[in-house]
Amino acid sequence: MKHPVPNSALEIRVPFVDTDAMGVVHHSNYIRYLEVARVKFLEEHDMPYVSYLEMGFQFAVTRVDVRYKKVAKFDDRLVVRVWVEWVKNVSLGFAYEVSRGDEIVTLAKTEHASVDNSGTLTRLPKPQRNALRALLARPAD
Amino acid sequence: MKHPVPNSALEIRVPFVDTDAMGVVHHSNYIRYLEVARVKFLEEHDMPYVSYLEMGFQFAVTRVDVRYKKVAKFDDRLVVRVWVEWVKNVSLGFAYEVSRGDEIVTLAKTEHASVDNSGTLTRLPKPQRNALRALLARPAD
Amino acid sequence: MKHPVPNSALEIRVPFVDTDAMGVVHHSNYIRYLEVARVKFLEEHDMPYVSYLEMGFQFAVTRVDVRYKKVAKFDDRLVVRVWVEWVKNVSLGFAYEVSRGDEIVTLAKTEHASVDNSGTLTRLPKPQRNALRALLARPAD
Amino acid sequence: MKHPVPNSALEIRVPFVDTDAMGVVHHSNYIRYLEVARVKFLEEHDMPYVSYLEMGFQFAVTRVDVRYKKVAKFDDRLVVRVWVEWVKNVSLGFAYEVSRGDEIVTLAKTEHASVDNSGTLTRLPKPQRNALRALLARPAD
Repeated sequence: MKHPVPNSALEIRVPFVDTDAMGVVHHSNYIRYLEVARVKFLEEHDMPYVSYLEMGFQFAVTRVDVRYKKVAKFDDRLVVRVWVEWVKNVSLGFAYEVSRGDEIVTLAKTEHASVDNSGTLTRLPKPQRNALRALLARPAD
Repeated sequence: MKHPVPNSALEIRVPFVDTDAMGVVHHSNYIRYLEVARVKFLEEHDMPYVSYLEMGFQFAVTRVDVRYKKVAKFDDRLVVRVWVEWVKNVSLGFAYEVSRGDEIVTLAKTEHASVDNSGTLTRLPKPQRNALRALLARPAD
Repeated sequence: MKHPVPNSALEIRVPFVDTDAMGVVHHSNYIRYLEVARVKFLEEHDMPYVSYLEMGFQFAVTRVDVRYKKVAKFDDRLVVRVWVEWVKNVSLGFAYEVSRGDEIVTLAKTEHASVDNSGTLTRLPKPQRNALRALLARPAD
Repeated sequence: MKHPVPNSALEIRVPFVDTDAMGVVHHSNYIRYLEVARVKFLEEHDMPYVSYLEMGFQFAVTRVDVRYKKVAKFDDRLVVRVWVEWVKNVSLGFAYEVSRGDEIVTLAKTEHASVDNSGTLTRLPKPQRNALRALLARPAD
C-alpha cells in the first residue's frame, strides 16, 4: 500500500484478551491500537507525547471513524501504519491503516483538538505545528 | 433532545477504571457503552442478541463513527440513547446519543453486517428484519 | 450464601465485549467488576468514593487475589457481593463473591492503602474509619 | 533480581489508555500484561499457545494473585518477567515480576487448569508437561 506522507508503523501481536466470543479481535480494541500508533508517530516525527503533556498540552480526541474490513484473530501479527493528514492551528487529523501481510484489516481516521489542562482550545506550539505541517509537504520514502 | 424513532436508554454510572490520566473517560470506552446500549435495544424492540447468536447470526461491526463533544468524569451519570437508523437485507445502522442531563457528551453511528458463524454475509431473518423496519416508520413516543 | 457483615450487591449483565475467544468472560474483567461493587459499597455504607477523592484520599489497591470457580458467558446475570473484611489505620480489606443464581462463579479479596494525592500513606479520616469498623461488628441482616 | 528458573521477559511501554484518573496505570491492566508475558514464555520455552488451542487444550485461569508495590505512569518502560513455578498433571503455576529499572512494581502468581474445549480437566500432553517440568530443574542462566 502507498502512504502519502512520512509515517510510523506499530507492530502488534494480538493478545488473547483482545478477542471476543466470536473468536476475533473485538472492534473496540482497534481504538486502543490507534492511540499507541499515534503516540509512536509523535515520538518518531515530532516530539514525545509526554513532552506535550509536560508542556500542558493535550490532543483531545474529538472524532474516531473506523472501518472494519477483515477480522483478526489471537496471535495475528498486525501492523498499524499512521500518518498526519491535516494540521490546523488548534486541531489536527491522523489517518491509519491496520494490515496483516497484504490484507487491509481496518482503516481509520481520528481528529484531535489541541487543549490545555483545563480543556480550553489552545494553539499548538509553533515549532510542533511547523514540524507536523512539514510532514504533509514531504512524500513518504 | 428529540429522537426520530422508538429507542432504548441505557444508564451508566462512570466506573473509575474508565477514566484516564487526564481525569476524564478515555474515548475508547464509549465504544463499549454503545454495544451494551445496542444489545439492550435489540432485547427491548426486536429479540435478545443471544437469540441471534443461537440462530447462528451475528451483527458484525463494519463501521464506528464517534464524535466527542464533552468530557465525562468518574461517577458521572450518563444516558446512552440508541435507535435503528436504517435496515437493509444484509446490513443495518444504529445511531446513538450519550448525554449527561441536558448536555450531549457524544454522538455516534455504527454500521453492521449480518453474517453467519463463518463470517459470510447472510440476510437477516425476515421476521427480525420486518420488526426492525417497522420501528423506522413509527415516530418515537 | 451467608455473608458475615453488612454488604452490597451489584448486578451485572455480562457485556459481549467482556467475553474472549473461549466464549467465556475473560478473567481480567472480574477485577473491574470488583471495583464497581466496592464503589457501590462505599456509597451505601460509608460515603461516596468521589467524596474521598475530593478530600484528597485514595484507596490505592495493594493486592488483588481472585479465585475462579466457574466460567460466565455473554448476557449472564451475575451478582457481585462485597463486604469489608478488616480496617486498620492506613489500610483496609474487602471480600467479594460473584455468583450466578446459586452458583459461586468467583471469590476474591482486595487490599488497599489509604494514601493522599502524592501517594503517601495517610490515616483514614476518623469518622470514615469508625463507620467502616462499625460494619465489622454488626451481623448482616 | 534473581530468578530461579529459565524465564521470559516482555517489555511494555505503558499506553495512555492504561492510566486512570490518579495518573497511574490502573491495577486491572497488569492482569493483561501477565497474560501476554505468559504467552511469550510458552512460545519461547514450550510451544506457542495457539498450538495448545489447536490441539484442543486451554490453560484456564483458576487464580490470580497480584501485589502492587509501586505505581507506574504513562510511557514508563516496564519489564514483565515470567517463569513456571510448578507443574502438575492437570494444572500449573506461573510467577511474575514487573519491574521498571531496578524497582519492583508488581509481583504476581497465577494458577491454571488444563482443560479441553468443553472445560473438562484434561492432562497436559506428556511432551509439553515434560518440557515445562524440565525448566523447573534447570537454573536460570
